[in-house]
Amino acid sequence: MALYYNQDMDLMEKITALAKRRGFIYQGSEIYGGFSGFWDYGPLGVELKNNIKKEWWKSMVYGREDVVGLDSAIIMNPKVWEASGHVEAFTDPLVECKVCHHRFRADKVEGNACPDCGGKLTEPKKFNLLTEVYVGTTEEGKEKAYLRGEITQGAFVNFKNVVDSTRIKIPFGIAQIGKAFRNEITAGNFTFRSREFEQMELEYFIKPEAKEAEKMFEFWKKARMNWYLSLGMSKGNLRFREHENQERAHYAAKAEDIEYQAPFGWSEFEGIHNRTDYDLKNHGLAHKDEDGSEYTPWVIETSGGVDRAALFFLIDSYHEEKERVILKLHPKLAPYKVAVFPLLANKADLVKEAKRVFDILKSKFPVAWDDRGNIGKRYFAQDEIGTPWCVTVDFTTLEDETVTLRDRDSTKQERVAIDKLPQYLENKLYS
Amino acid sequence: MALYYNQDMDLMEKITALAKRRGFIYQGSEIYGGFSGFWDYGPLGVELKNNIKKEWWKSMVYGREDVVGLDSAIIMNPKVWEASGHVEAFTDPLVECKVCHHRFRADKVEGNACPDCGGKLTEPKKFNLLTEVYVGTTEEGKEKAYLRGEITQGAFVNFKNVVDSTRIKIPFGIAQIGKAFRNEITAGNFTFRSREFEQMELEYFIKPEAKEAEKMFEFWKKARMNWYLSLGMSKGNLRFREHENQERAHYAAKAEDIEYQAPFGWSEFEGIHNRTDYDLKNHGLAHKDEDGSEYTPWVIETSGGVDRAALFFLIDSYHEEKERVILKLHPKLAPYKVAVFPLLANKADLVKEAKRVFDILKSKFPVAWDDRGNIGKRYFAQDEIGTPWCVTVDFTTLEDETVTLRDRDSTKQERVAIDKLPQYLENKLYS
Repeated sequence: MALYYNQDMDLMEKITALAKRRGFIYQGSEIYGGFSGFWDYGPLGVELKNNIKKEWWKSMVYGREDVVGLDSAIIMNPKVWEASGHVEAFTDPLVECKVCHHRFRADKVEGNACPDCGGKLTEPKKFNLLTEVYVGTTEEGKEKAYLRGEITQGAFVNFKNVVDSTRIKIPFGIAQIGKAFRNEITAGNFTFRSREFEQMELEYFIKPEAKEAEKMFEFWKKARMNWYLSLGMSKGNLRFREHENQERAHYAAKAEDIEYQAPFGWSEFEGIHNRTDYDLKNHGLAHKDEDGSEYTPWVIETSGGVDRAALFFLIDSYHEEKERVILKLHPKLAPYKVAVFPLLANKADLVKEAKRVFDILKSKFPVAWDDRGNIGKRYFAQDEIGTPWCVTVDFTTLEDETVTLRDRDSTKQERVAIDKLPQYLENKLYS
Repeated sequence: MALYYNQDMDLMEKITALAKRRGFIYQGSEIYGGFSGFWDYGPLGVELKNNIKKEWWKSMVYGREDVVGLDSAIIMNPKVWEASGHVEAFTDPLVECKVCHHRFRADKVEGNACPDCGGKLTEPKKFNLLTEVYVGTTEEGKEKAYLRGEITQGAFVNFKNVVDSTRIKIPFGIAQIGKAFRNEITAGNFTFRSREFEQMELEYFIKPEAKEAEKMFEFWKKARMNWYLSLGMSKGNLRFREHENQERAHYAAKAEDIEYQAPFGWSEFEGIHNRTDYDLKNHGLAHKDEDGSEYTPWVIETSGGVDRAALFFLIDSYHEEKERVILKLHPKLAPYKVAVFPLLANKADLVKEAKRVFDILKSKFPVAWDDRGNIGKRYFAQDEIGTPWCVTVDFTTLEDETVTLRDRDSTKQERVAIDKLPQYLENKLYS
């Protein structure tokens, strides 16, 4: 909309501005000048994020018989992070400018000059990304612990608990969604690299066999890519990228990323990893199979970022058509499924009937209401937040109990009977 | 079940054992000896907790036109906690035994003797409950921040963002669910007093008028109590308790708790607070109304604990009937809505047909499968985790396409046609 967007703004500026103006994402602690790497999700953002998480859980837990859920604590006994190798190896290479003392990730800087002032950089040193937290009841007695750097370890330390308390048999998976924290050297690219973020992960336990690992790696790789495609992400903006030897995390024997073509370059937002028996061995865990054999299972992991997925769904769905801005979000992800308008706000019978339609729909879906300005402006306002359908109650409605249903992407309009409307929308939504 | 429960176990021991054995709640970091005040939710626990959160969101956000959601960060700019008064006043009185050096909350200890060794206790000193965390990129440069001690402040610091990015007008509410952390002096009573916990809160902004505050306080008090009752909590185990002057938190002008009669005594699990303009004023925020008047809104808050609600739903639903243990959870809260059994596991046609029924239902609800032991044992196993209905595929099924539907609470059985089953259960579930 020409009103808001300057032609000189780049796509990320437009997305960031839209996110704030319409209540998707705000800077964290904004009234105190923000806090680098922390973001708050507004009324529409929390719905988008919840919808992503809900669809993930439906696909990964409810849709399968071999996967169970888990919700482990953010703070764990610090011994977990010693055993997991994170205290030792969860590091990024850090360089500091000798002149302005700004700090950078060595692998993100070209050459040996400071990107900010051109000064000379120090030799890289290892910087640990775990966030320290102090737990306990007096100043002297406080114990150093860590905010989890990945939600993953919660699944491993509970491996035996899950096996003992369910009927699940190998191969099986533990699915989990939750917050993790990393002391990133450089937070940036809007929510892409944050210090607090949410992960959605599957740890899939298999027999310790290379062939089985290869098979399941390929299976989950495809399954995860298909999930993003099924929710409308453009195929042309997605690709796999296999990690080279030196870039793999300390736990991974094989790692392949799903990358999105963001305005700031191809960027990882989900990783599929073969963690072998690295983690369970570190925690001293093995498994006794039904047939009596004992072994340490291998793990194929799918590790996605909820915030990154939300950001890329926003970017991917962003369209400009003449003066119109449209978020072509998949209906399952859209914060509001439908908006209801009375044609004129000053006609009591139209408003009353529209209210009735609103109430009928609201018992089924999240519904927006708008009675300001003209219909065209209301369509624009809903297009911009991705509402797939708009319903207008007009004078014909008062005669024949039908409404105008307008489609976001095609802008086509059709008349639908009020009593058929909920089922009609439900069919569109869940088809 | 006599097999598991000793008559000498008290109710809390039974609940704790059941929670671990069936995968509701495990001790956090258990294989490393645990970590006091931290808990992990297993496959059934995460479903119970998610169901509570889903029902809360449905009731507080989707069910209302004057409430929007929010999801703010756990770590905020530390200035937030200075302005909010928490750095100064978010304290509990702490006493220490001069002999064994164990520490206690002064208001939870009777007299001046150590509950553990009888030694003399120190004078109480103020102990701040905020959990310290260190954020930043080098040892020297790390900044002290806090894990949020309540999710509440996220709603206040975003007050202007929410007003500016939505069409909401006072009176309106901001609803939020998320993790908070407190350095509790004594964690205990299973998950009741934890150091990491989840809150579900509404901050409802109103005009700064005592009469309006009183009206909305009463409204939300009733609404919240009714919500717990609507999800099946026993009226006799619930009560309101108004805080006396000296026990109110630093922000509250009036506070009333919803308490549950737990085995360890009447215990608060939701508070309704009149926070007046205390918080918005602390953050230097005011509001310009449509009519041009400027004022600082008052806030009526409903602050519930998700973990405490989950614990009390477990306790309240726990029943023993002869040898049978039943969790009479409301169907909306039950982890599995229905279980499907083939009458005999060694009859291929029964198993095949049961699998078909399982798949039909699984596309609609979380469904359990069991083909072990006899039907009686399977009923017992499902009763114990609160599954409201069990479906058995037997030889009659193969003739007439009906199944046996058995009700958890009444144990009554009826025959239902397979093609009517999904709708039949949906009606029971959402009625």
